[in-house]
Amino acid sequence: MRSECIALTAGEPAGIGPDLVVALAQRARDFPLVALADKRLLQERAQLLGLPLTLRTYSPDTAVSRTAGELTVIETPLARDCLPGRLDPANAPAVLDGLRRAAGGCLNGEFAAMVTAPVQKSVITESGTPFSGHTEFLADLCNITQPVMLLCAGELRVALLTTHLSLREVPDAITIARIDRMTRIVAADLQRNFGIAKPRIAILGLNPHAGESGHLGREEIEIIEPAIRQLQAAGLQVSGPVPADSAFTREALKRCDVVLAMYHDQGLPVLKHAGFGHAVNVTLGLPLIRTSVDHGTALELAGTGRADSGSLQAALDLAVRLAQQAAKP
Amino acid sequence: MRSECIALTAGEPAGIGPDLVVALAQRARDFPLVALADKRLLQERAQLLGLPLTLRTYSPDTAVSRTAGELTVIETPLARDCLPGRLDPANAPAVLDGLRRAAGGCLNGEFAAMVTAPVQKSVITESGTPFSGHTEFLADLCNITQPVMLLCAGELRVALLTTHLSLREVPDAITIARIDRMTRIVAADLQRNFGIAKPRIAILGLNPHAGESGHLGREEIEIIEPAIRQLQAAGLQVSGPVPADSAFTREALKRCDVVLAMYHDQGLPVLKHAGFGHAVNVTLGLPLIRTSVDHGTALELAGTGRADSGSLQAALDLAVRLAQQAAKP
Repeated sequence: MRSECIALTAGEPAGIGPDLVVALAQRARDFPLVALADKRLLQERAQLLGLPLTLRTYSPDTAVSRTAGELTVIETPLARDCLPGRLDPANAPAVLDGLRRAAGGCLNGEFAAMVTAPVQKSVITESGTPFSGHTEFLADLCNITQPVMLLCAGELRVALLTTHLSLREVPDAITIARIDRMTRIVAADLQRNFGIAKPRIAILGLNPHAGESGHLGREEIEIIEPAIRQLQAAGLQVSGPVPADSAFTREALKRCDVVLAMYHDQGLPVLKHAGFGHAVNVTLGLPLIRTSVDHGTALELAGTGRADSGSLQAALDLAVRLAQQAAKP
Repeated sequence: MRSECIALTAGEPAGIGPDLVVALAQRARDFPLVALADKRLLQERAQLLGLPLTLRTYSPDTAVSRTAGELTVIETPLARDCLPGRLDPANAPAVLDGLRRAAGGCLNGEFAAMVTAPVQKSVITESGTPFSGHTEFLADLCNITQPVMLLCAGELRVALLTTHLSLREVPDAITIARIDRMTRIVAADLQRNFGIAKPRIAILGLNPHAGESGHLGREEIEIIEPAIRQLQAAGLQVSGPVPADSAFTREALKRCDVVLAMYHDQGLPVLKHAGFGHAVNVTLGLPLIRTSVDHGTALELAGTGRADSGSLQAALDLAVRLAQQAAKP
């Protein structure tokens, strides 16, 4: 039988990740949930937040707690005591260990999906492991060269063709091969994990007004349109190039299941405007299901009880839904 | 006494502009409204739409009708008969005449503001007058070299540092001088016409995450931050560089009166998502008040009765509000 268990990594110990894990544990679950974290840290944070927390130790052979106020944990010990807000590179290896353990469990069928609380890239890099993000780290672990970042806020979904590039580098990164490859990944993942039989993908232009027939740039004519024709010829339901400022109106969104933006600031401002607090980041193109919050470690909020667990709850809900869909024959 | 009269240009005759003018005329106004259009065209369109319309001829010395179903018009005759959806370059001069007459009236105090229905750039250019947009045309008329485009949807306001440039040209167009000049225009106009005593302006970064301390581009460090410091030293309430995907969350928007985006597709997708159907385009930095719809000529909808007059109504309402504010001592 395929596992239904969801693995939840607590992320940067000095940030709000552990707080959010404690907050989520307050609700009963109708699926097994296992956290990867340092038990003492969770208990300390629960005390600071004034929340009850009973921890159970995970073993693959015993049932995982679904009870409110209880949480099953795979102990992922920190090297040093951690105070809220105080970054310590000595604890970075434990963060990476948790990610490796969760991903490994997804790959071997022990877990159905993984959900990640936010990490602090800078402190991981400082600890000696260059780290540009969860997405890239997991792609490396899985030997995947080009994962795709998808953000979801309710029914609004935005995938990014390029992510963390300076704006100056974006135009040269837009190639027919990249659009072709990434669009196929988006289509395949929406089909398999989201249960959308024929995903309709709206591909944005690179330039304002999608280039206005070449008056405002020629990438649409030379790159994006040929890529779209190629994908259509292969039977994919793609449309575009759509001007970015037309693509997100209510009417236009009804006509597609996902918008493929050419770059970060073309797609994410709308997504965060529409969904901040419950937006979810999903990594497509991996041989595992991974969802994540859409926010950072918020060091200044750790231990205060003022962190909002809405995005992590939404990430968990979506992971469960995707895992159930993927398990269908 | 300063005029309260609003001038409304009907825009491209083959588009939905005349339809929207006829639709607006159905409501009684509590301010004088004068349309610049071809009377026969308005009557033909009213018949197609099945709406009553009585036209009055404008004269500066007689009262302007405010009655529902009536409209006072400055005759702006077309060269040729116009069918809905059929572009004809021979009629482009009449469109430009209307704009010149409306702007002239604003400059000499005959009108308090002008509101423009959409024009078709391509057919005007085809007629022999190079035309890149209302904003540039009006700036030329007023001898202004650098107007600023502001989009409003309710309380959400987005100003653009650059507008119709290919994405590749954007980074080099971002200069300290440009940010300084345009931010001052935004601040002055929001103060004078919007009645915001100390406008709070959030200036976006150019790169994702506002460059992430130089890891994703250096324009923030070398250009945007120095420009912000310079403006702050001059007493302006500016903040930033703000990452574009953080700037449009509900919390962030509460802390500013306007967002200054570096380029078209960084700012407008959110605006059109939040406000399509009632978004308004305002030109700042001109010696007159001009508002406009946020949509195009929608040739296929002309004469069908399916055009939505929400954006033109919002443009008219805002023009009245700005004119009243500007008239205060």
